[in-house]
Amino acid sequence: MIYLDYAASAPMSDEAMQVFHELNQEVYGNASSLHDAGGKAEHILKYCRRQLAGLIHGHEDGIYFTSGGTESNILALQSVLNGLPAARRHFVTTSVEHSSIRNLVFMLQSQGWDISVMQPDSSGRITPEILLSHVREDTGLVSIQHANSETGIIQDLRELSPILKKRNILLHTDAVQTFGKIPVHADELGFDVLTVSSHKVYGPKGVGAVYIRPGVEWKPLYPGTTHEKGFRPGTVNVPGIGAFVTAAAAMAGQMKELSLHFHELRSHLFTEGQRLGIPLQPVVDETRVQVLPHIAGCYFLRAEGQYIMLECNRNGICISAGSACAAGQQEPSPSVKALGASDQEALRFIRISFGQHTTLQEIDSLLNTLHETAISKL
Amino acid sequence: MIYLDYAASAPMSDEAMQVFHELNQEVYGNASSLHDAGGKAEHILKYCRRQLAGLIHGHEDGIYFTSGGTESNILALQSVLNGLPAARRHFVTTSVEHSSIRNLVFMLQSQGWDISVMQPDSSGRITPEILLSHVREDTGLVSIQHANSETGIIQDLRELSPILKKRNILLHTDAVQTFGKIPVHADELGFDVLTVSSHKVYGPKGVGAVYIRPGVEWKPLYPGTTHEKGFRPGTVNVPGIGAFVTAAAAMAGQMKELSLHFHELRSHLFTEGQRLGIPLQPVVDETRVQVLPHIAGCYFLRAEGQYIMLECNRNGICISAGSACAAGQQEPSPSVKALGASDQEALRFIRISFGQHTTLQEIDSLLNTLHETAISKL
Repeated sequence: MIYLDYAASAPMSDEAMQVFHELNQEVYGNASSLHDAGGKAEHILKYCRRQLAGLIHGHEDGIYFTSGGTESNILALQSVLNGLPAARRHFVTTSVEHSSIRNLVFMLQSQGWDISVMQPDSSGRITPEILLSHVREDTGLVSIQHANSETGIIQDLRELSPILKKRNILLHTDAVQTFGKIPVHADELGFDVLTVSSHKVYGPKGVGAVYIRPGVEWKPLYPGTTHEKGFRPGTVNVPGIGAFVTAAAAMAGQMKELSLHFHELRSHLFTEGQRLGIPLQPVVDETRVQVLPHIAGCYFLRAEGQYIMLECNRNGICISAGSACAAGQQEPSPSVKALGASDQEALRFIRISFGQHTTLQEIDSLLNTLHETAISKL
Repeated sequence: MIYLDYAASAPMSDEAMQVFHELNQEVYGNASSLHDAGGKAEHILKYCRRQLAGLIHGHEDGIYFTSGGTESNILALQSVLNGLPAARRHFVTTSVEHSSIRNLVFMLQSQGWDISVMQPDSSGRITPEILLSHVREDTGLVSIQHANSETGIIQDLRELSPILKKRNILLHTDAVQTFGKIPVHADELGFDVLTVSSHKVYGPKGVGAVYIRPGVEWKPLYPGTTHEKGFRPGTVNVPGIGAFVTAAAAMAGQMKELSLHFHELRSHLFTEGQRLGIPLQPVVDETRVQVLPHIAGCYFLRAEGQYIMLECNRNGICISAGSACAAGQQEPSPSVKALGASDQEALRFIRISFGQHTTLQEIDSLLNTLHETAISKL
């Protein structure tokens, strides 16, 4: 099997598995227990908090571990919204967020929250103008994803965050797809609240984290919670967290090499695709718009993405026709439609995403299958 | 280190770790993805659902996997409460539930829910009389733990559930401490909704499940959720779930032997304790009240539980002075106070909990330490 759906999930790295195994044998106590078995777990947890904070250039006191990216988004947004002063309870987000945020917005709106949803421009970006036209005097929080999980389009938070900072508006960013792949630096990007996930960076599934810049007010979603300083209730998964942080640190240590590797794979995919006459077109002009190197979001011009995905699957190659978290839904992806695509065009979307061990030979196999599929559709 | 705090957490069994390792290598796709890597994960997930349903004699369609016991309680109660008809929105629970439920009740009350909290009798049990005096015509859901995590006292759900069934009232039970230790049989106990956790039965931390009897109405806490039939959002942790179900099945397969083993350890603890003159007194008369065999909840008559726990810790033995999920709180445990103990008496509570590999020699070491501590306090 050739797996080219790393944006959906990745296997644990050997190092992460090794740490998971060791922590499970040696540090299995409940981190809340007051005896040494608990103290040892709490000690490892503290170390992990410091490590993760280091990776995002934040402060360890702001790290809260969770059960994954979705829970991180749900808890982060609700906890910070609940901490906003009464005069600043307007919340702004985008139409291209991960389904966990889209669904949450739907629920918050039904609870009476005042929420504005920004549409990106035709190249998928939230520009300063778009942001400025949505923030108001009573805006307290803005949530903009760092990069889109389907198109790979990166938002320029460096440019957007000063606009918010000047107005004392908090910025949350969902960095599930960018963390470990490109720098996610608290001060440089200027976020106040951050979501990251473990299984996208070769850590275990079921682990994630939120960063809330110390000083930012928030209120626990479930009052009375004692774990994670009240942020998330439930026994803390120390072996999983140790494995996550190990995997994340390894990604950070090879970010430049991996980025070059991904660019090479990507360039090969599109250059060879063009040479072979495969009707593969990147969703945005990558010379103008920054995209994540490991996510190749494109249109296959003569067929539905679902069909291409199944044809590839029949040939032992796993790619995707959109976010796994919305798989099975028949509607075209909002993130692709936001680029100005019609429903029909949006349904021709496919996502090819690379992993650290993906090879040029695997891309050649994919090209081969796409080529044959294209010919059969002529 | 002698670990006698298995009610707080347990290490993963070798079998569970092996399965985790294999699934991570072979089934790392996102279970929501539509290609074969996703299909394989979905297939394992389906197998796990069937396995877990078999262990509780329920139906696989009613199994929803979560990130642990706490999340299971939170999602189960809210989802089922939200599904109750308008005329039956009175909720009844007990004063001795796990902190996740106590905290949730506090939150639901602040949201305007009508909730009654039952006090057990002086032996810690919810009797039919107590239950009958709390249910009303508009009661829709009752939540009663299967056994208490601190005292080990088992509620006689067999006796209580017919009272509710007759009145069309749903029963939720938190079986985190009982699952895998004593039979948790859907029809025999008569519950409609169930909470179980993985790390108490030698599965990984960060995994749990809810059972909702098919036919029971519920509404997703986060509308729009696609995973776990809308019950819980977020990538499903298939390797963790596979490891959990493996561990749980192993426990079920040796339940009788382990129960005998725990009874032997327990009997040794109390008999030898008495012979040595250690002032150790079980919190309830075990000839009259059913308790979980692996949890020995007792008073150490001449000192605070916290002190005894620390003395044991100093001697390399991990026991607990109460639930880890409430550790660090200075207040006496509601579960111990419910037995009629004064604050001072309740603070003398200690919990010793056995694991499958706990030996008589380890109990002797504990007795030795308790004996020396008792003498020093004379």
